[in-house]
Amino acid sequence: MSPPAIDGGDDCYVGPSLEAAVAWEAGKPLSIEEEVEVAPPQAMEVRVKILFTSLCHTDVYFWEAKGQTPVFPRIFGHEAGGIVESVGEGVTDLAPGDHVLPVFTGECKECAHCKSAESNMCDLLRINTDRGVMIGDGKSRFSINGKPIYHFVGTSTFSEYTVMHVGCVAKINPAAPLDKVCVLSCGISTGLGATINVAKPPKGSTVAIFGLGAVGLAAAEGARIAGASRIIGIDLNANRFEEARKFGCTEFVNPKDHDKPVQQVLAEMTNGGVDRSVECTGNINAMIQAFECVHDGWGVAVLVGVPHKDAEFKTHPMNFLNERTLKGTFFGNYKPRTDLPNVVELYMKKELEVEKFITHSVPFSEINTAFDLMHKGEGIRCIIRMEN
Amino acid sequence: MSPPAIDGGDDCYVGPSLEAAVAWEAGKPLSIEEEVEVAPPQAMEVRVKILFTSLCHTDVYFWEAKGQTPVFPRIFGHEAGGIVESVGEGVTDLAPGDHVLPVFTGECKECAHCKSAESNMCDLLRINTDRGVMIGDGKSRFSINGKPIYHFVGTSTFSEYTVMHVGCVAKINPAAPLDKVCVLSCGISTGLGATINVAKPPKGSTVAIFGLGAVGLAAAEGARIAGASRIIGIDLNANRFEEARKFGCTEFVNPKDHDKPVQQVLAEMTNGGVDRSVECTGNINAMIQAFECVHDGWGVAVLVGVPHKDAEFKTHPMNFLNERTLKGTFFGNYKPRTDLPNVVELYMKKELEVEKFITHSVPFSEINTAFDLMHKGEGIRCIIRMEN
Repeated sequence: MSPPAIDGGDDCYVGPSLEAAVAWEAGKPLSIEEEVEVAPPQAMEVRVKILFTSLCHTDVYFWEAKGQTPVFPRIFGHEAGGIVESVGEGVTDLAPGDHVLPVFTGECKECAHCKSAESNMCDLLRINTDRGVMIGDGKSRFSINGKPIYHFVGTSTFSEYTVMHVGCVAKINPAAPLDKVCVLSCGISTGLGATINVAKPPKGSTVAIFGLGAVGLAAAEGARIAGASRIIGIDLNANRFEEARKFGCTEFVNPKDHDKPVQQVLAEMTNGGVDRSVECTGNINAMIQAFECVHDGWGVAVLVGVPHKDAEFKTHPMNFLNERTLKGTFFGNYKPRTDLPNVVELYMKKELEVEKFITHSVPFSEINTAFDLMHKGEGIRCIIRMEN
Repeated sequence: MSPPAIDGGDDCYVGPSLEAAVAWEAGKPLSIEEEVEVAPPQAMEVRVKILFTSLCHTDVYFWEAKGQTPVFPRIFGHEAGGIVESVGEGVTDLAPGDHVLPVFTGECKECAHCKSAESNMCDLLRINTDRGVMIGDGKSRFSINGKPIYHFVGTSTFSEYTVMHVGCVAKINPAAPLDKVCVLSCGISTGLGATINVAKPPKGSTVAIFGLGAVGLAAAEGARIAGASRIIGIDLNANRFEEARKFGCTEFVNPKDHDKPVQQVLAEMTNGGVDRSVECTGNINAMIQAFECVHDGWGVAVLVGVPHKDAEFKTHPMNFLNERTLKGTFFGNYKPRTDLPNVVELYMKKELEVEKFITHSVPFSEINTAFDLMHKGEGIRCIIRMEN
């Protein structure tokens, strides 16, 4: 359980045994394994000591592997905060001791997407949920008794140490508390950026948020920070409404309470439509509602939630011709390495309130409790403490 | 045929007889009537002497009245240039002698849309193709022997004189030649603005234009002015390709020449997709293609063509999630009174080349020739000279 000796120069080196929560099979509770070897970082890789990690729906989704390619045994986890322990050849942007957030998608800074001011969908390091190995040599850095344990989205943070491509690691202000800002490495930034970077609600505007889970609440938080006057939360679960007030929601609509389409309910509440909407459920009907509820002339709808693979978005094209805009976003349009440090600063300046997203905390040994909480829909984010 | 005496103060006054081209029935050639009375402008109205007008597909569409509410007898025409002859009560922005472009949609400057920097869809004066009367008193200003002849989209420019709401009249530089800039009052500005104001192609970018009619060529012209490097014209009629080079098109795709979807053809030509696309046909399949052919990460598609009332836009929502944007536009997002004078200035500065859109010219007595040319698909714009 001591940190691995630093020996990045020897390809044959295998680190000492460490704890990691291994998913051996789809849907089975994770098993804390104490004999996981974490190989040293190769070229353009870094090894990071994870201090805090949290659970996101995407971990659960691929752990359940209902319909996805099953990749097991695997170490899940992608929302986390840690400290660089060692760096591989060619790494100049990071050094041991740097405080970092792992990110499930990367920024190589060289491809057309990274060079575009508008995109964060890096060609080299874009999220790949099927790949269980490092892109450099196609191998895993995790093993037990010589047998590989697969990576997840290049991060695998449910481990005391993990190895990542340098392009998937954001260096942040070392003064930032990692037990708080760890949640910024996925869901919270996704929702926040969807509103701040993509929907861009003008001050005083009206914003509709579809789905009041962690991402939707972060989207509401973005609208609050942007100075929206009315933030309307839409969810089928009315239990979420009270909590959502903390994130700036001023009004609520439960589609179950109405016998007319949500679009119409919202149009009647807002004199013709909301100025901006952000869809955070992934449900195709909610996507269509989120688009059709924005005001003609200037309304912008932003899709965040990931749809079913067979979903079809349908609307009458006049809804576009009447000057509505529909956009989608990935990770809130944040470029991981360039922009995440600024999101952390937004928290340090007390503009972004991260604490209210953190409703639970468990030691690493109780990681399966975090899965249980998510299954029950309890709380927003559960921090998993690696050290105690 | 002399101009009417100015007597805006008397509601019962009826102007002297003037020529106008009257559509008595759907689809029947227009009849030049020499005994049309044009009443003086009422409050917030202006009477304009039309010097040049041109024919746009929208005139033909409503003249044919296939599926639309038939409103006859009617005076069509909405692309034109003229000079203010008299103004009604309350009109302070315009005075007799002002050079103006009539516009089929208006700008009241008071409603939420006019006050929004993002919209040009005025609540009061937005295009209304069914209304054949003035909004002030619900009456027509045109009559023959006391029987009303209906207006068309508030402009009815196929007449020596016409009466319009002041909000539908753009005052322009009197030095601008009206026989040229008259074409800017509808189709050309629609296409031009779709690219310049909405698609906003960065310098050096690649733009696809779907449909190489007048609006599409104007969209290409907008891309040329914006500094696009590659402008790809897509049309089922290859005869249009040579002419389209004058408007900046550098390459062409005829969907008939390929046995794979146009989206795929364009993706292969452009390393993954075009930066911007502008759809100017109104065909629903072209709309879907125009959206799906833009590059992930940053692509923006703009819909201009008016769809069939039963059309349905369908796509997989992942096409949005991968950071594509779909927008629609109306009249190129130009606010008629505020922005059209600047479009005229773009021509005066020789940045916008208007002459190449004008392929034919006929005297008013031969207005039906303009309809024949459009039916045959010959030329782009035919100017109709009111005075000779």
